[in-house]
Parts: sequence; C-alpha cells; structure tokens
Amino acid sequence: MKELISLIDKKLDEYLQIEYPEDIFKAMKYTLSLPGKRLRPIMCLETARMLGCDINKALPSACALEMLHVQSLIHDDLPCMDNDDFRRGKPSNHKVFGEANAVLAGDALLTFAPQLIIEKSKDLTFEQIVKILHEYTKFAGAYGLIAGQVVDIESEGGKLVKSPQETLDFIHLNKTAVLFRLAVRIGSICANADEKTFNELDDFATKFGLAFQIYDDIMDEISTFEELGKSIGKDKASGKLTYVSLYGLDEAKNKFKTLINECYGIINKYESKIFREILKKLEHRILGEEE
Amino acid sequence: MKELISLIDKKLDEYLQIEYPEDIFKAMKYTLSLPGKRLRPIMCLETARMLGCDINKALPSACALEMLHVQSLIHDDLPCMDNDDFRRGKPSNHKVFGEANAVLAGDALLTFAPQLIIEKSKDLTFEQIVKILHEYTKFAGAYGLIAGQVVDIESEGGKLVKSPQETLDFIHLNKTAVLFRLAVRIGSICANADEKTFNELDDFATKFGLAFQIYDDIMDEISTFEELGKSIGKDKASGKLTYVSLYGLDEAKNKFKTLINECYGIINKYESKIFREILKKLEHRILGEEE
Repeated sequence: MKELISLIDKKLDEYLQIEYPEDIFKAMKYTLSLPGKRLRPIMCLETARMLGCDINKALPSACALEMLHVQSLIHDDLPCMDNDDFRRGKPSNHKVFGEANAVLAGDALLTFAPQLIIEKSKDLTFEQIVKILHEYTKFAGAYGLIAGQVVDIESEGGKLVKSPQETLDFIHLNKTAVLFRLAVRIGSICANADEKTFNELDDFATKFGLAFQIYDDIMDEISTFEELGKSIGKDKASGKLTYVSLYGLDEAKNKFKTLINECYGIINKYESKIFREILKKLEHRILGEEE
Repeated sequence: MKELISLIDKKLDEYLQIEYPEDIFKAMKYTLSLPGKRLRPIMCLETARMLGCDINKALPSACALEMLHVQSLIHDDLPCMDNDDFRRGKPSNHKVFGEANAVLAGDALLTFAPQLIIEKSKDLTFEQIVKILHEYTKFAGAYGLIAGQVVDIESEGGKLVKSPQETLDFIHLNKTAVLFRLAVRIGSICANADEKTFNELDDFATKFGLAFQIYDDIMDEISTFEELGKSIGKDKASGKLTYVSLYGLDEAKNKFKTLINECYGIINKYESKIFREILKKLEHRILGEEE
C-alpha cells in the first residue's frame, strides 16, 4: 500500500510540471501534493492489476482520478460553497492563492486530468481511451459529482425536492460513491474486463462508497481536527443532512457494518490483499472499540 | 449565417435536457441560451464544410465549443474574477443562480462538452474523437484559456512577469485566439484535413482571434452598454492591459486592419462565403466610418 502511494505521489508530481504562468500550476500542485490516502487511484490500479493488466497502463488514469478528486475539494472549500479554511491539515487552496486562482486551478485540473489520460496512456487503444473519457466526463459532471454537490448545498439550505432519505442517498451516491465507481470502472476498462466482472466490481465500489461516506459522517461526529486535518463538527453546526443526523449514530454504525460485509462478499471472490486491507482499515477506525 | 445560428441554438437546447437536480441544469442552460453570435461553433462547422465534410459530423463538437466558451464567461463574471453583473444584456449567471451554482454550472459545462462529443459524434472514428478531445483539453485548460485568464487577472493587479507587450500578446493568444483555433482545428480533424491545410487554417484562426480581441478592446473604448450587452469602460477604469491602453486607438485600428487583411489572404484560397461574411462584419463595425 505504501509503495503504491509513493508511486502515485511520484507520478502526480512528474505529470504536472510548473510552467508559465506559474501561479496557476503552483495552485494546482499545492492541494494535489498535500499528503493523502490516494484511495481512488489505488483502487483503480488494484482493479486493473487483479484483473491481469499491467498497472502502468492504468497509471495515467489513476492519477487523473486523484486530480478530479482534488478539483472537487478545491471548489467545495470555496467561500461560496462549504467555506472551509483547512484541507488535509493545511490552509485550503483559496486561503493560499486567493479565490480567483482557486476557481481556475479547479477548472484547470478538470481539463488536465483527461489531457493526461490522452497523452500518457500509450498502451491503451483509442477505443479504450474514449470509453475511459466517457466514464470520466459523465461521473465528473452534472450526472455525477456535481449533481451530488448541488443537492448537498441545497439540503443545507433546507431545500429538499425529494424525501430526506432519498436526498441523502442521492448525495452519498453522487458526491462520494461516484469517484470510487469511476476508479474501478476505469481499472476494468484498462483490463478489458467482461461485462459481469465490470458490473460486479461497480457494485462493490458503490457499496464501498456508501460505507465510506457513512464513515465520514461518523468521523465528523466523533473525531478531532488533529485526526482529520479539516474542520470538525461543521455538519452538525450547519444542520447538514448526514447519515448520523438522519438515523442516529448506532444505526449509522450498523449500516456501515452491513455495507462493509457486502463488500467483503464481493471482493473475496478476487485475489486482492489491497482491497481487503482497505476494508479492514476503514472497519477498524469505526468499529475498533467493539471488536 | 442565420440558418447556422438557428441550427446551433436548436441543437444546444436539444443536447442539454433539464434533469434532477434541476437547478444545475437550469443554470447551465441559462447562459447557454442567451442569444449569441455563436461564432466559434459556426467557424467549426464552416471549416468542416469547406473541407468537404458533412457538418452533422462536426455538430456535437461545435456545440461543445459554445459550451466551453459559455463556461469561461460564467466563471470570468464571478465576483472573485471580473465581477460582471451583466452578460449578453442579461444578469450574469451568479446574479440569477448564486455564486455556488455558477461555479458548479461552469464545472458541469466543462465536463458536459466533451461528454457530448463522445456520445453524439457517431460518425467519427475513435481516433478522431481522441484527437478532438486532446485539442479540447489542452486549449481549455492551463495551457490555453485558463492561462490567459490567470495572466489577465494578474496584469490587472499590476503583477507582470513579462514585458507589457509580451503579456498582452500572451493574454490575447490564450484568452481569445485559443477558442477560434480550437474551432478550426476540430473542424479540420472532422474533415481529416492534411497537415498543410490544418496549419494554414490554424494560422488564420490565430490572426482572426487577435483581430477579434483588438476589436473587443476598441469596442470597450468607443461603444455603449446597449450595443454590447455588458458593462462598458471597465477595462479603462480598472487600468487593464488592452491593445488600446498600450498602443492607443489609432495603432489598435491599424493592427486590426493588418490582421484582417492577412485573414482574407488565407481564407480567399478556400470557397467560403461565411468566413468572408464574418470578416466583413467585424471590419465594418470598427472601420465602417472610414470606408
């Protein structure tokens, strides 16, 4: 796992060189280079590997996924959105580079990510690249990530079009699960997976994404700033719709447990230490004291 | 020309359907449906047509270009950027939908545009689609449009890394010419143009883009709000670097004239009423009184 993180960090640094005008490249690199778990690229690489594909084929796409994730963090932190001053334990992008550059750095990452996939995926066919970019564009935009963010913001303002339960499901699926799905779907495309495998792993990623968001909701309730590196208790303070606020802490833990078990049920069919390690770590943080 | 505008307007409306969450789709459609000259999509379609390609092949890409253009307008108008309250004669996006939705609508257009190219370009090969998306991602991001916007903002704050002349050239090339270049380059790819034609038309689009930006700088100096549909005299008030502020009105007109003549020199080799009509209209607005 550590080796994969080092490889991804090295490649992220290598792919994005600082050019004129330096301010925009520095702003892009700033949030991208803050230490992160690199979960999405790892899941993309591990999917490709366990399906028999050389991970180098998936490496540009994996890094592109982290860029997309970081783009969403930069824009989410803006004063007009979640207004967060910290990210991964450091001042957020607009605090360092100003709002205009933070908006533009996000925009630039959103287009650099697919550019990278096109320029560096030398061993993929044109058809594979088009398929990957199709997944990327669908899941990054108004049919995925952005839909999730919009409904999230609306729900904070108390504006619900659907029921609280449906709204929360929509947010969790589109704001969080979507990037994990994108990771395994792209990994599967790199490995030319058959339809059954593709859909099964997509299902795994959906369940994992939901579990991950419930984990996040629980951590916002029980964790500290030092542990998470971002503002804590904001969800509660802003009356935000979360799994914990809607169902309570116990029910949230139960749902988390069920989803993680379903994830094991799927992934145990494959040879993957790394996926099991990821599940175990997540499980341990939430349920550790009960074991 | 009018027929092309109608076709593009119809397709823009058809391609982007309003779905849940409606607010984001409405915000995307709002600025997109304000009446515009649709110059970039027209130039893309006309390039394809005059090189012998069915314009239907280029139609999704042409509409994607307008979406990219509108995305840049929405983000440029934000309070943290140019802070413009009006666009195409109407309140700008963030004035109607709020800042958060305007940021997200821009993001969503930036990913919907390539999604549209992938989903609707049924008669292009995978290789052509990858080539088009490569042009799109390069020119839309930190190596094009965004680089231009960053340097533009910096120059307003008096922060110049290069000389004023070099800085202005960089802004004009990257903020304005880039989208016209993208238009003819994509049109050329749809038509499978040979390298010589591709480069010649790219040169035409570069010169046209520079002329267009000088036109814009001149209009900001001599026009009215009613004529342009956006705030006027802002460049001057903010001490912005423009062709007029740097070289004076007469020299700006001369440079404009030279560039337009060079454009005629290239485009007259091709059979295109529409390109000549575009040049003539632009010429007439600036030089009308002298003719």
